[in-house]
Amino acid sequence: MIATKYQGNKTFKVHEKEITEPSKGEVRIKVAYVGVCGTDVHIYHGMMDKRVSIPETIGHEMSGVIDAVGPGVADFSVGEKVVVRPLDDRLVKSSDKGYNHICEDLKFIGIDSEGAMQQYWNVPSFVLHKLKPETDLKLAALIEPLSVAAHDVRRSGLVKGETAVVLGGGPIGMLVAMVAKEVGAQVIISEVNPKRIQKAKELGFDAVNPMEVDLVDYVKSKTENKRADVVFEVAGVQPALDIMCEVAGIRGRIVMVAIHGEKKPVDLFKFFWKELSLIGARVYEKQDYEKAIELVAANKLPFKDMITDVQPLSNIQTVFENIDKNPDGMKVLMDCSL
Amino acid sequence: MIATKYQGNKTFKVHEKEITEPSKGEVRIKVAYVGVCGTDVHIYHGMMDKRVSIPETIGHEMSGVIDAVGPGVADFSVGEKVVVRPLDDRLVKSSDKGYNHICEDLKFIGIDSEGAMQQYWNVPSFVLHKLKPETDLKLAALIEPLSVAAHDVRRSGLVKGETAVVLGGGPIGMLVAMVAKEVGAQVIISEVNPKRIQKAKELGFDAVNPMEVDLVDYVKSKTENKRADVVFEVAGVQPALDIMCEVAGIRGRIVMVAIHGEKKPVDLFKFFWKELSLIGARVYEKQDYEKAIELVAANKLPFKDMITDVQPLSNIQTVFENIDKNPDGMKVLMDCSL
Ligand SMILES: NC(=O)c1ccc[n+]([C@@H]2O[C@H](COP(=O)([O-])OP(=O)(O)OC[C@H]3O[C@@H](n4cnc5c(N)ncnc54)[C@H](O)[C@@H]3O)[C@@H](O)[C@H]2O)c1
Ligand SMILES: NC(=O)c1ccc[n+]([C@@H]2O[C@H](COP(=O)([O-])OP(=O)(O)OC[C@H]3O[C@@H](n4cnc5c(N)ncnc54)[C@H](O)[C@@H]3O)[C@@H](O)[C@H]2O)c1
Ligand SMILES: [Zn+2]
Ligand SMILES: [Zn+2]
Repeated sequence: MIATKYQGNKTFKVHEKEITEPSKGEVRIKVAYVGVCGTDVHIYHGMMDKRVSIPETIGHEMSGVIDAVGPGVADFSVGEKVVVRPLDDRLVKSSDKGYNHICEDLKFIGIDSEGAMQQYWNVPSFVLHKLKPETDLKLAALIEPLSVAAHDVRRSGLVKGETAVVLGGGPIGMLVAMVAKEVGAQVIISEVNPKRIQKAKELGFDAVNPMEVDLVDYVKSKTENKRADVVFEVAGVQPALDIMCEVAGIRGRIVMVAIHGEKKPVDLFKFFWKELSLIGARVYEKQDYEKAIELVAANKLPFKDMITDVQPLSNIQTVFENIDKNPDGMKVLMDCSL
Repeated sequence: MIATKYQGNKTFKVHEKEITEPSKGEVRIKVAYVGVCGTDVHIYHGMMDKRVSIPETIGHEMSGVIDAVGPGVADFSVGEKVVVRPLDDRLVKSSDKGYNHICEDLKFIGIDSEGAMQQYWNVPSFVLHKLKPETDLKLAALIEPLSVAAHDVRRSGLVKGETAVVLGGGPIGMLVAMVAKEVGAQVIISEVNPKRIQKAKELGFDAVNPMEVDLVDYVKSKTENKRADVVFEVAGVQPALDIMCEVAGIRGRIVMVAIHGEKKPVDLFKFFWKELSLIGARVYEKQDYEKAIELVAANKLPFKDMITDVQPLSNIQTVFENIDKNPDGMKVLMDCSL
């Protein structure tokens, strides 16, 4: 089989590798598609060289078919379509209070251990979620980031009739917007990249550029001055932190999806004054995967349009180089049969 | 009657004033005790001269007895003991979403309009809460700040068996700690002022100085490494903002009680990583007053020890000067009969 390894220094190696038998409690997956996540791009840029044990096969957004079942695995059979929820929570402790998905010693599969950017992948069976036989495996490769979005929306408590403002129309922001719309909320996307604004409009969203339009006035005009009930910070930049407290209405909930590597100034007075809440959200729980799987199965949302390129796995080096050259694309998948 | 007026320039005037009849919808209260709040001290320091219309009678923490009832007031009678919830929400709009207590055009009585630092005070009857005849009017003067604490604890969702860390053992922090303890939580107060640490201990609290003890280690040792379920930020300083994200455990809720006048650096990464929540809390709602009234009536908590001085109203100038000289005291009341 073909496997890939991140070698450091913006380089991937594509190599032949022996197919191994799944150990006790494991299954072997024939990987169908693997998506490239912002985190994978970070790794490629060398930003996570301390965390990743180089050389390493990375990748955690995928879909596939069970190819072999190891000893002690009763619930899965060869031929079943699956996705992986790449959270290894085996080191969970009682001080994690049952929040396994963010437990202190969580290992993220595909970052902290071998990932999906290879043709066959052995994983412990507890990370698997089954798909219906008729599921489109390309769309299924979106289930991991879609579960992030489902988690974010669930954490927000967003309900039908409320207004959600999504700051940042990248892949995660766009999926958050879709899940929010599916809940029955009015959704407004704020994005600065004209190509992504265009994309958001094509996907059917109300999208504005906060450099051109006064976002607060715009949201007020769409909410009878109530402003946003929920704000998703999915941009990761200071202007988004500044505007999130303005655009949120009284008792507004702000979901912190973006990862801010350092302390940033926040308008805490506004939190006091309007009784805002800030809600941290990280990855997903089992029920978020189930929600994402259900949404992909229903296929009513424009997931297909999120996939802006599909390339053979063996082209991995060019795939990452092109993402750097053209950062406007949404989701790039690699076809692992090629 | 005697009334007082803040005149700007750290000066109060004590003067004779005509007792006036309550207008339609109003009652006249014979004020018993009026407490000095941090906000009153701010006003005295000239920090709020833009907001207060000088000269102005300030004061919003009080207890009293109904002395006269204006036309159209059916529910109150002369002789009843009352406290005032000093929120004038008559300009509430639909964009305030029903959150009257923090509505955009809220007027805070005693800051934005005439307050309680006088012997008789006319107020609209909708701000009144009745007390039982046997209520101690000194303790009742604590109901306003106690309602702040009740609101903060309610906003936190704190339940029995959880651990709450209170950052800042000033009057508000101490009352928050009392309400949290009454809920059945384990309470730890972090305070830097040795006299206030001492006071907290006298009040029966576990109190530590974060300059001397590693607060995070201390809280871990008291929670089997879980850290705090709830953190109340009632100190209003950067070290409290820094430690709040450390001392909170997984999915910890941080209640922002303190008022931060400018943007301050916050560790948003921790919000993401541990899925923390930050919950803004401002003043109180009707039910918080009811809770505070109930707590004062039950009188199981050491409210009495919160009152560190009682002075005649006519001494107002000295009272404020002494608070500046001795900032360790907790709650100073003025007796309006004198
Ligand atoms: N919480 C989690 O578990 C989780 C999971 C995945 C990703 N993330 C984080 O979510 C964030 C978004 O991920 P992504 O892959 O979509 O990233 P991305 O960088 O592709 O998207 C961010 C978008 O924000 C836009 N933007 C920049 N400045 C803006 C501004 N002032 N106003 C509005 N938009 C602005 C950018 O143009 C870009 O399109 C990142 O911070 C990522 O690390 C978090
Ligand atoms: N949310 C509301 O509606 C509301 C209502 C009243 C007061 N407040 C605010 O609550 C805060 C507290 O009010 P207060 O009257 O008790 O004020 P205060 O100044 O008397 O109390 C603050 C306490 O924090 C302590 N402190 C300072 N640095 C510290 C540190 N690093 N760690 C721990 N403690 C530290 C101080 O020694 C002091 O005792 C203020 O910011 C006030 O404006 C808010
Ligand atoms: Zn990812
Ligand atoms: Zn006050």
